[in-house]
Formats: sequence, C-alpha cells, structure tokens
Amino acid sequence: MEENKFIEIAQKAKNASKKIATLSAGLKDKALLNIAEYIKNNQDKIFEANKKDLDEAVVLVENGELTKSTYNRLKLDENKMRDMIQGIIDISGLEDPVGKVLLKRQLDDGLILTKVSCPIGVLGIIFEARPDVISQISALAIKSSNAVILKGGKESHNTNSVIMSVIQEALNKTEGFPKDVLTQVFTREDVANMLSLDKYIDLIIPRGGNSLVKFIKENTKIPVLGHADGICHIFIDKSADLNKAKRIVIDSKTQYPSACNSVETLLIHKDFEYADELLETLKNAEIKLVANPQSWHKEYSDKILAYKFVHSLEEAIEHINEYSSGHTDSIVTEDKTNAKIFMNAVDSAGVYHNVSTRFADGFRYGFGAEVGISTNKTHARGPVGLEGLTIYKYQLEGNGDIVKEYAEGIKTFNHKDL
Amino acid sequence: MEENKFIEIAQKAKNASKKIATLSAGLKDKALLNIAEYIKNNQDKIFEANKKDLDEAVVLVENGELTKSTYNRLKLDENKMRDMIQGIIDISGLEDPVGKVLLKRQLDDGLILTKVSCPIGVLGIIFEARPDVISQISALAIKSSNAVILKGGKESHNTNSVIMSVIQEALNKTEGFPKDVLTQVFTREDVANMLSLDKYIDLIIPRGGNSLVKFIKENTKIPVLGHADGICHIFIDKSADLNKAKRIVIDSKTQYPSACNSVETLLIHKDFEYADELLETLKNAEIKLVANPQSWHKEYSDKILAYKFVHSLEEAIEHINEYSSGHTDSIVTEDKTNAKIFMNAVDSAGVYHNVSTRFADGFRYGFGAEVGISTNKTHARGPVGLEGLTIYKYQLEGNGDIVKEYAEGIKTFNHKDL
Repeated sequence: MEENKFIEIAQKAKNASKKIATLSAGLKDKALLNIAEYIKNNQDKIFEANKKDLDEAVVLVENGELTKSTYNRLKLDENKMRDMIQGIIDISGLEDPVGKVLLKRQLDDGLILTKVSCPIGVLGIIFEARPDVISQISALAIKSSNAVILKGGKESHNTNSVIMSVIQEALNKTEGFPKDVLTQVFTREDVANMLSLDKYIDLIIPRGGNSLVKFIKENTKIPVLGHADGICHIFIDKSADLNKAKRIVIDSKTQYPSACNSVETLLIHKDFEYADELLETLKNAEIKLVANPQSWHKEYSDKILAYKFVHSLEEAIEHINEYSSGHTDSIVTEDKTNAKIFMNAVDSAGVYHNVSTRFADGFRYGFGAEVGISTNKTHARGPVGLEGLTIYKYQLEGNGDIVKEYAEGIKTFNHKDL
Repeated sequence: MEENKFIEIAQKAKNASKKIATLSAGLKDKALLNIAEYIKNNQDKIFEANKKDLDEAVVLVENGELTKSTYNRLKLDENKMRDMIQGIIDISGLEDPVGKVLLKRQLDDGLILTKVSCPIGVLGIIFEARPDVISQISALAIKSSNAVILKGGKESHNTNSVIMSVIQEALNKTEGFPKDVLTQVFTREDVANMLSLDKYIDLIIPRGGNSLVKFIKENTKIPVLGHADGICHIFIDKSADLNKAKRIVIDSKTQYPSACNSVETLLIHKDFEYADELLETLKNAEIKLVANPQSWHKEYSDKILAYKFVHSLEEAIEHINEYSSGHTDSIVTEDKTNAKIFMNAVDSAGVYHNVSTRFADGFRYGFGAEVGISTNKTHARGPVGLEGLTIYKYQLEGNGDIVKEYAEGIKTFNHKDL
C-alpha cells in the first residue's frame, strides 16, 4: 500500500486507541467473548481459507521455497482451533490490566497524586506463518485497551484475512466498541511504513524467528519488545547433585529443542567429579555434544549441545555474561552461596537455580497470557504478560493549588502514601 | 576520540556495570558520601576551573555565540555548590532501588519465582551547559548500580573535568568500589559513537533543550529517556471557578516560564461566563495572549500564552491529544464527571484537575531524586525517579524441577503469591 494510505490507517489506529483507552472492562470482555463465539461459528470458513493457503504452500515446500516446519505452523487443525477459541475466552477472564492504582500519595492536604496503569497506544505486530497468532494478539490488544496494526506472513494471507474479517464482524456486533482498533496490512512496504511511523506507532512486537526480529530491531526507532537469539546456559557447579544435573540438562535440551528457552551451552566446573558420567548420560539421551569456541554464540535449536570446562564459578559467570543472549541461564549446585552469587551476577532476564531453563514462559510463571519473551533492559524483561502492554499516567487532583506558594515557603509538602 | 578507543571505553563500562550490580547498598552509600566530602574539600579547585570556563564564555556571549541564559547555567556559585553537595548526600539517604522483591510466587511446591529489581547496565548521559548535572547523574547512577558514560557541554569542559577527577578520586579511596563505573568523554564524535553502540549502552538520557533531545532521538536505536517539547495545556471548563482559574493559569505560565511544565496553550469553554475577566487578569499579569493556529504546536518558554475557545469538553480533549507533547495537561472545573472524563481521555504523562501544571516534578511527587521527565509510552513516563534507572530479573529456585513432568501431566502448577 502507498505510504499516504498507510499513514491514514495509522492515524485511524491512533484515534481508535484514544477511544478504546476509556472503554469499560465489561465491554472489552464482551467483545472478546463475541470474537470467540464468531470464530467458533465460522470454523468451516476459516478451515477452507487455511486449505487454500496449505495448497499453495505444498507447492512451495516441494520447490524447496518453504520449510516443512513452516508448513506445519501454517496448518490449522481442530486442536489449534480449540486452543485459539479457548485462549480468547481465557484472556477475557483475566483481571483488567488498565486502571490499576499503582500508587496513591498525598503531596499536601487535599493535593492527591494517583499513578494509574493505562494502555500504551498503538501496537505494531509483525508475525510469521502461524495464523493462530492473529486472534491471540487481537485479544491481548483489546484486553489491554491498545489499538493494533497486524502484518502476518504472506503464506497465511487467506487464513489471516478470513480470521480478521470474522473478528471485525464480531466487533461490529459489539455495541459501543470503537472502529479501527484492529487493522490488518499485507505487504512488505507496509512493514517498512510501520517501522518508520514512530509518530503513530508506540511499540513493535515481532513474533517470529531470529532474522525477522533482528531485521526489525535494526530498522526502526520505535521500541521493540522481543528477543532475537535464545542462547541459554547451564552451569554445573563443583557441588552439583548428579541426578539433578542429568534431569535438568536433558529437559532443557530435549523437551522442545527449537524453543528459545532451550539450553545451548553447558559449562562444567573442572572439579565436578561426575562430569564423565553426566556427559555419557547426555550422549545416551541422543544429545550431540560439541566443544569449540565457534559454538559459544550459536543457537542450535536442535539436540546439539556445546560444552566447556571452567575453572571457577567466576569464569562461568564471565562466560555467560559474554555469550548469553540474556534470556535464561541456570546453575546446578548444592552450594547456596554460589547459587546466590550466580543469580545476582548473571545479567539475564531469568537466572535459575536447580531448575530447567524451559520454565521461562508466561503461562508457567502464572501470567495467564504471554505477549512474548523480552531480552530488553527497559520496559519489560523476561516472559511478558498483559502488564507489558500497559504504561501509566499520573493524575493529580487539587483545589486551585499552585507551585508559587511552595516555592515561597507559604506551604510545604507533607508527602504521605495513602 | 577514535571509534576503537570509544569501544574500549564502552566495554570497560559494561564490565564495570556487572561489578557495581552486585555491590552492597552500604558500599554505594559510602561512595556517595565520599564524593560529597571530596567535592566539599575541593571547592576552590572547582570554582577555579569554572572561572576559566566563564572567562571563555564571556567572549562567546559578547560575540553572540552563546546566550546569556547558557552563561548563567554554566556559572557555579556558593548556592549551586551547596545544593550539589546536599543533592549527593540526599541521594545516599534514599532507599536502595536495587534488590527490591517485586513479586514472590510459588509455581509449585518448592518451585519459587522471585521478581527482583536490578540495574539497567550502562547509561549514556548527554547534557548541556550545567556542570552541576555531572555530580547529580553520577550519584543517581551509583545509587542505582549502573555504569555511566557522560558527555557534557563543551562550554563547561574545564569545570566538568575537575569535578569528574574529584569524583574519581573519592571513588578510588572507597575500598571495594569497582573501576570504570564513571567515564567522561568530550567530543562530538564521542556522541556519535555513543549513539551507535547499542551493544554496550542500554539507555540514553539527554539533559538539555529540545533540539539536543530531538537530535538524539533521531540518531539512535538505543532507548532514550526524556522529552523534547513541553507543550502543556490548561482547559477552563464551563463550570470552572474563576478564582482557581486565575491562580492556576498565572502560576502555570509565570512561576518559571522556561520550564518544560509551564503552560503554553489555554483552552476556554465558550460558555465559561467569566472568560473576559480571566483574560483581562492574565494581561494584567504581563502575560501576552496570542490566538492563531500556528501557536498550537509552539513552546514559547516565555510569558506568552496561546488561547482558543472550544465548544465542548470533547473538543478540548481532541485538541490536547492532537497538539500536546504528552507532558502535562490540566482541567479547571467544578464538574467532577468532566474532570474524570478529561483525566481518562487525555493521553499525557500528567493529567491534572484544578492544579497548576508546574507540579510535574520528581521532587514535588516525593521521589526524592529526579532523573528527568519522560514523555515516552514505554518503560518510564512522567517525572522519573531512581526506579526509572532499574529493570528487573526473574529468579527461579527449585530442586531439580523439569518441564517434562508438567507437560506430561505428572505434576501441575499451583500458582500462589507468597
């Protein structure tokens, strides 16, 4: 789409964001339940569109232009459809993240400051093949009172179009729900436009592989919430319990090897006396072990594990702070002091003790919904729930209060939290 | 400085940030008190350096290359020196913003998640003439366990150099305090290098005028904490109390006209019956009133006030959401419903009712310290205290826990906040 047209869409989204910002929790939840119902009632239409996408994709897979795993992510089945619908219903049941009082403070008698959570504004979401993302992100945006412009993968354009039109139909039938809260765009130019419009778009959330996220981070000044690499570490300390070490490393590597929270590098204290047995067990679990410096910054996303012996806890921490992507790193040790040092000194979103790295996940953390996992050092870090789609504003109420009287000492502040 | 040299400095700052991250609150506060003492004991040296800068600046002012107000900001006197020293002592007395438990949750028996506040990492601070900023920012960085690279204005290079060397001396004498936490750079190339090094620098904080902040925001992918414009509004509703309206507008415009939280545009409901008297009073208070559409996005920073009549609360909100810089906007009204609508719908960091816009300030809010005022929609918004220099990490402690057992239904989560 032409830049001018896109700017028009972005302006409309901005206006819509002001309207949804003031919607009641009840109306938002009603809209979500309507969406769930409409998707349920229009499953056949959605499966039909998905079939079209799959038919086109099959040819691409045969030509080697599309991977089999992308094809699988593209495919909607009864299970995914059920999860999609249930996901929206679950989000409607969560606490409203907007309008929460984060601080209430008297600055002086009758001069009351309130810090209240509020939506961010307009989200730009860029995702790859999975068409189930569209309903999930739409639901998260509505629940948190944000407007959103969505750009899905071109492989799923038929499915995405039909899902979006079903969602729009449900919203149109929800009385009082503002227009233009959700907009879908389709082309690569739209992505370029999105990344350049920091005037209208407040936060970009990429959902996809490393190269997508890296491209986006390098091409926008809008804050990006997400992570590119997922290079997670486990350090087996001298005093580690062998059985825990085996369980944790095998789970972290094999339970879902392509997940971002899978372990990629194993560091072993040179004085850990069961190192040979541990490595043997890993090999028997069909984990391929590699040991060369090129491995330290590699995300295998497969049953391949880099390993290295270190001389001390400090060396392990230094290695991790150099090579970790800041996602999740775990220490296996019976030494509580070492665990504490590790968890304080390792500069990652998740720092674990005697636990599999695979726990890094919004649902496992009990957030009820997951926007994504962030390795940012500002705003939101680690698994991000609905809270990550909000910011806050300060409301100040008084009765004609002016600063001059405080500057001149006629009045003085008497700060007191209420 | 050459790029390679700057990268070396940034790497050292990154390493230092890992070390200061684990420092005890006691040691940080001791370092701060040492800095205060060293500055106190080296006042003469600092005044002498400031004299040099002022002598050079006088020539520039005469040539018209420097404004008189920049000259005034550059000048250190006994009062500013006392405030500088007291400011550092005050920061040492604040609660440690690092290591706060923000959430403690049992995911399952013996599987405990803790969300803990921690420093961001390396801050890049770019400021203009005021040399007192250097000690303030250094103190804030130390208190929040961040490393910092500082670039001051070239007009104050003598003063900055001496203050920094005094601070470094104090830190060297503080046993256990890591090296390279604070570094000062001097040239324009250094700014360019700073803005490009998102690998090492986690947050940029500009302290200065609009054009500095705009330049920085347009030239970096690193998150920038701050605000460019400060276009604040006051809306006089139909039911406004005339006396409150007079007090609030005069204070907001005249108490410190060049401050970012001064009002720039006055919106008046067409049915407010005392409009003429209000405008007359403003003129008598030496406020120049202007009324043309070019004024709506202008920051006068002077006793000039744009004004406009509007037909409704809704029109006022729309005008503000279009032209406000998102800093602070106030409604004067006796109608509580209208006040509530205004405060919910206006999308600004500060939304006020019957209060002067000049209250937007970290000290007045009771934060004890102010990093700056942010109009960002992510991370930190409004006046930012020490909390804005922190993020958090998730610590997870268990006893050999693995995800497989939950995926297979052998175990189930029993989320419970502790």
